[in-house]
Amino acid sequence: MPEPIPPDLAAALRVPSTATLTSILARRGLRNTFLTGVRPLVPGTRLVGQAFTLRYIPAREDLDHTGTVDNLTDPQRVAVESIGPGDVLVIDARGDVRAGTLGAILATRMRCRGAAGVVTDGAFRDSPAVAASGLPAYARAAHAAANKTVHHPADLQVPIACAGVAVYPGDILVGDDEGVVVIPRHLAAEVAAEAVEQERLEEFIMEKVRAGASIVGVYPPGEAVLAEYREWLQRRGAQPT
Amino acid sequence: MPEPIPPDLAAALRVPSTATLTSILARRGLRNTFLTGVRPLVPGTRLVGQAFTLRYIPAREDLDHTGTVDNLTDPQRVAVESIGPGDVLVIDARGDVRAGTLGAILATRMRCRGAAGVVTDGAFRDSPAVAASGLPAYARAAHAAANKTVHHPADLQVPIACAGVAVYPGDILVGDDEGVVVIPRHLAAEVAAEAVEQERLEEFIMEKVRAGASIVGVYPPGEAVLAEYREWLQRRGAQPT
Amino acid sequence: MPEPIPPDLAAALRVPSTATLTSILARRGLRNTFLTGVRPLVPGTRLVGQAFTLRYIPAREDLDHTGTVDNLTDPQRVAVESIGPGDVLVIDARGDVRAGTLGAILATRMRCRGAAGVVTDGAFRDSPAVAASGLPAYARAAHAAANKTVHHPADLQVPIACAGVAVYPGDILVGDDEGVVVIPRHLAAEVAAEAVEQERLEEFIMEKVRAGASIVGVYPPGEAVLAEYREWLQRRGAQPT
Amino acid sequence: MPEPIPPDLAAALRVPSTATLTSILARRGLRNTFLTGVRPLVPGTRLVGQAFTLRYIPAREDLDHTGTVDNLTDPQRVAVESIGPGDVLVIDARGDVRAGTLGAILATRMRCRGAAGVVTDGAFRDSPAVAASGLPAYARAAHAAANKTVHHPADLQVPIACAGVAVYPGDILVGDDEGVVVIPRHLAAEVAAEAVEQERLEEFIMEKVRAGASIVGVYPPGEAVLAEYREWLQRRGAQPT
Amino acid sequence: MPEPIPPDLAAALRVPSTATLTSILARRGLRNTFLTGVRPLVPGTRLVGQAFTLRYIPAREDLDHTGTVDNLTDPQRVAVESIGPGDVLVIDARGDVRAGTLGAILATRMRCRGAAGVVTDGAFRDSPAVAASGLPAYARAAHAAANKTVHHPADLQVPIACAGVAVYPGDILVGDDEGVVVIPRHLAAEVAAEAVEQERLEEFIMEKVRAGASIVGVYPPGEAVLAEYREWLQRRGAQPT
Amino acid sequence: MPEPIPPDLAAALRVPSTATLTSILARRGLRNTFLTGVRPLVPGTRLVGQAFTLRYIPAREDLDHTGTVDNLTDPQRVAVESIGPGDVLVIDARGDVRAGTLGAILATRMRCRGAAGVVTDGAFRDSPAVAASGLPAYARAAHAAANKTVHHPADLQVPIACAGVAVYPGDILVGDDEGVVVIPRHLAAEVAAEAVEQERLEEFIMEKVRAGASIVGVYPPGEAVLAEYREWLQRRGAQPT
Repeated sequence: MPEPIPPDLAAALRVPSTATLTSILARRGLRNTFLTGVRPLVPGTRLVGQAFTLRYIPAREDLDHTGTVDNLTDPQRVAVESIGPGDVLVIDARGDVRAGTLGAILATRMRCRGAAGVVTDGAFRDSPAVAASGLPAYARAAHAAANKTVHHPADLQVPIACAGVAVYPGDILVGDDEGVVVIPRHLAAEVAAEAVEQERLEEFIMEKVRAGASIVGVYPPGEAVLAEYREWLQRRGAQPT
Repeated sequence: MPEPIPPDLAAALRVPSTATLTSILARRGLRNTFLTGVRPLVPGTRLVGQAFTLRYIPAREDLDHTGTVDNLTDPQRVAVESIGPGDVLVIDARGDVRAGTLGAILATRMRCRGAAGVVTDGAFRDSPAVAASGLPAYARAAHAAANKTVHHPADLQVPIACAGVAVYPGDILVGDDEGVVVIPRHLAAEVAAEAVEQERLEEFIMEKVRAGASIVGVYPPGEAVLAEYREWLQRRGAQPT
Repeated sequence: MPEPIPPDLAAALRVPSTATLTSILARRGLRNTFLTGVRPLVPGTRLVGQAFTLRYIPAREDLDHTGTVDNLTDPQRVAVESIGPGDVLVIDARGDVRAGTLGAILATRMRCRGAAGVVTDGAFRDSPAVAASGLPAYARAAHAAANKTVHHPADLQVPIACAGVAVYPGDILVGDDEGVVVIPRHLAAEVAAEAVEQERLEEFIMEKVRAGASIVGVYPPGEAVLAEYREWLQRRGAQPT
Repeated sequence: MPEPIPPDLAAALRVPSTATLTSILARRGLRNTFLTGVRPLVPGTRLVGQAFTLRYIPAREDLDHTGTVDNLTDPQRVAVESIGPGDVLVIDARGDVRAGTLGAILATRMRCRGAAGVVTDGAFRDSPAVAASGLPAYARAAHAAANKTVHHPADLQVPIACAGVAVYPGDILVGDDEGVVVIPRHLAAEVAAEAVEQERLEEFIMEKVRAGASIVGVYPPGEAVLAEYREWLQRRGAQPT
Repeated sequence: MPEPIPPDLAAALRVPSTATLTSILARRGLRNTFLTGVRPLVPGTRLVGQAFTLRYIPAREDLDHTGTVDNLTDPQRVAVESIGPGDVLVIDARGDVRAGTLGAILATRMRCRGAAGVVTDGAFRDSPAVAASGLPAYARAAHAAANKTVHHPADLQVPIACAGVAVYPGDILVGDDEGVVVIPRHLAAEVAAEAVEQERLEEFIMEKVRAGASIVGVYPPGEAVLAEYREWLQRRGAQPT
Repeated sequence: MPEPIPPDLAAALRVPSTATLTSILARRGLRNTFLTGVRPLVPGTRLVGQAFTLRYIPAREDLDHTGTVDNLTDPQRVAVESIGPGDVLVIDARGDVRAGTLGAILATRMRCRGAAGVVTDGAFRDSPAVAASGLPAYARAAHAAANKTVHHPADLQVPIACAGVAVYPGDILVGDDEGVVVIPRHLAAEVAAEAVEQERLEEFIMEKVRAGASIVGVYPPGEAVLAEYREWLQRRGAQPT
């Protein structure tokens, strides 16, 4: 099981946008961390949690079209009943949206188990009910077909591909209305700290721009504007880092 | 003209989700019945009706870019003026979204004729007005170009492809917020019956899961849970099937 | 800088739908004027303005991953600080949605400068904040990565491709909930005039169809219906053209 | 059955390249006549014949996965046994290459019946044997699966889409190493005549360019070069048109 | 390590085409066994062997762009040095062709170790040299970039997806000029037997068709033709099955 | 005009494969330098030259479908008549293969002017004749339609995108049977030197592997093997670098 995120780190990661987090990872040379084409089912969704991975391969008729499912051995079902507080189920569905990868009953069960969310590069089925379940959920599409029409759950808690991004078990996922960013576990604390600071600076810059400032010298900020920013921080009682 | 759906069958098909209907068809070996990538224009849309098909091929400039349309011979126009109560116009646009396939005036006319909806694997044009027309409408995209920019209406009431699924005239289409499932006409009654039962069982399972039950022994239900389900049904005064 | 649109022309272009404008251009032989797959960030968006173009090419690591940006030479930044009232920034991102092409601070700055909107065939980053900025904005997707992850701003105010359509600096862009149409500058006045008339005629036709008329003889209108239309116009005090 | 092409017209159409024929059609306003992405199985293939069309829709398991085929009713089989000298079987497979559309035995049978070729926007199966059959064959891909895995033969001799181009029964198909162009039947004679002339002119231009001439005044030819061309024609004993 | 294929089974599998093998699997209900879009590098390639699987996920810059590779831990390298006689390395590259998945030195090494071939749903790099290595090789494309530009070798000998088909370690792969079919290990013997018989029948049918027979009653063969076939078999001294 | 490549640099760049050159650029952090999906028209093609760029945007009917072309102003034609010895015409066609980008007469003219080759991320038309022209030529596809059916030549000698890679005028292009790599001009000399050395080392490694060596300690080479390599070099009279 992935180790849960410390509560203060989770709280810190709820503040910045995925755009800010993605930029900070890019500064560290990690330029492929945002899941392309994966969107929240419900506007206003916010997600923070650790990755619990599930890998699908294509279905084979003799294994997958039998109409039976064994909750004790099927990796999808084992994942659902293994997941704990703060876990995010991340599904590698090879981007194939010709069937769902998970439906509303399993989403509800995960929510009861304390899961933080579910992310797939395929589709959800019964997606209106998944949306209504209250579990933060991100996908590329909706499709009514059951997963085994196209997919075979192959294994869990291995490194996977999701929407073109590598996801390792325990990685931190943060989602907002734009989508989902994957933060390597060992970088999460420093990325969070830097992101909070970056958001503050961008809030200051945005204030200036809204007030009519040119971006020249302001975005990115020059020395004069950075000095002004430090004053602004002090006035607000915040600690510059 | 396709034979209308008996009112009680239509009513029964309004209850289950497309996810349930798609699963029941898969149990009968029909695994490719849900239109991939086709979404409702308006959230909350619900559609039940029989397929009236219209087939487009690519436009040819000397036939289609003349600026004239003959309502008495153009298959699109003939379809609109032929359609009757409960019919769903299903358009095979080869998935090509570089032009609309139908606009708001024709959607309105179909609504006046009692049509149950319109489904295309291409785009609508004037799609905000199509959405406002009140006719249940599903498409892959929106595009302002008139259909003959890209499409040529070739014939109607023939078997077609729509979003990767075979649609035969008279097939039953059922749509919800997830999308549209195509039910072969001769299976509609038994699928509807089974779907109503399946929905009831899933409602029971969902209740248990929401209350904290594990999925083990519950989804799919084991003998004990099925017994509990039968009691639950009796308490609600419903007839188990 | 593109010449601003005369106020009465801008006002006239706010009336018709992009579907109507696209049809009128098609009648003049211009059949590829609507941006395929580009949608408004906010429902109800309406856009009218002249094109200020910006061209991206793929990033090269030694030029674009340096972490610095020079507001005085970077074409994206120069564009933002050059744009004036009524201008629409139109970005050629080669349809590549693996990074954003512009974010909320620059959108806000453009709004302060009087820009009429921003259109990209790529993605916005920080798209929820771009949506909230009040600037009419159209894109194919959302992506949190900064533009230089994938894109290099190459030049501005040159003819570009956007979503498969040619856009020349100064062309008129009109957007509604369906998307964006590009009107060659020299045709804008006559297209606007014809569109206003066409909208009026279609309003009349729609009224008849809503009241139960067949489309035969009505859409397109025959002589009798055109006569009726002229009377209808007179009753409303409008001038037929 | 489509009427055969007169032998002298067929002979004339064997001379020009598909590039020349496509250009001549474009001059008449027909700009979408060449099958995108459809290539010959064998280098050096040359094809001239009239279209005999076959339309596929997606398979449905209860109709298509039965393992039986009735040569007397299955449109694919009826087509093969209907085809006559000079006919080209043109298959609308919706561009779906996840199964073959026809294999080597049927290709061989068509060759025995005098068919001029076979063209599909899907795949052939047993494509090495199709290539070896001697029948001119064009496709987008090769795939070993039998057609009914994915396709259902729906009807024949109706207008179809093939690789994005409209094909009407009886249209003339001409193929070379580049691919296949579709010539509307009623234009074939005049297109052939113009193409022969155009090829002669381009041969002359190519000779000049090979000899070191600039393209200025030569391609397209100015008055001086056209005069030179007429002399060149006379020297070769050819009749200028 | 997968168990090698018995020599007589391997020999039997060299006879039939992938088209025949794919059809026989489809009769058993396995309809998705042929790798779509994967072609031999060298015409005339023939492949028979057992699957040794290798799974790639997307690269992450801190793990994969270091310029070092450890032959003792990198799954790609471990695979190459583990592979034995008759093994086919099958690579799951998520269909991503923006980098190679293996080059000429590793292909040569595998050939020296007795490998039967290599199959990828991505690209080879140094593909002209891979082609020249003599190892049967199939891919979707060629790309000069080293694998870690885009890919990270994640694990080996697990079930994978390759070109849309499930491949389990030990499955039998058979390739010809058309491409590659995956035969579940436990079905290989009976599929081979049936395929040999099917090829014989089709050879007989092809002979008849080449001689001018109609397909009616012949393909599929009716009772009379089957009797004729049995005689033909006896004349050739073959045992009917 | 781009400055020609010094003859000894051009000679050095003819030795290594594009795979080697792409790897050396990746070591310098440039990981996106190989044109994905662009293949030589003729097996055995080899290309070295400096980039002369040409940019296409989508055609607009009033500008591009007129049937006339002005050799003195049309950027495509100006490019052809400007190109000099060692230049490679590189065309940005937005990857759109629905028309050709250049045909055989212009290819022949460029060859007469001393051009080193032509590369497009679209298609050639009259591609069999382009192949026969002797000019090294690379493309994604073949299409018979003339360029202005889909494309408008917009400008030349500006930075462009080609097959997902940035190409600046004067960059060095090297092509082999695998495809084409783009080398930034200022890196060409050092990349060439390193590539020659790398090829020598890989030739040595390949020799060892062909002779039965494991890759462990050999590829990448350990200290012992590097020492062996230095001896091998001396025996061959080559200078180690």
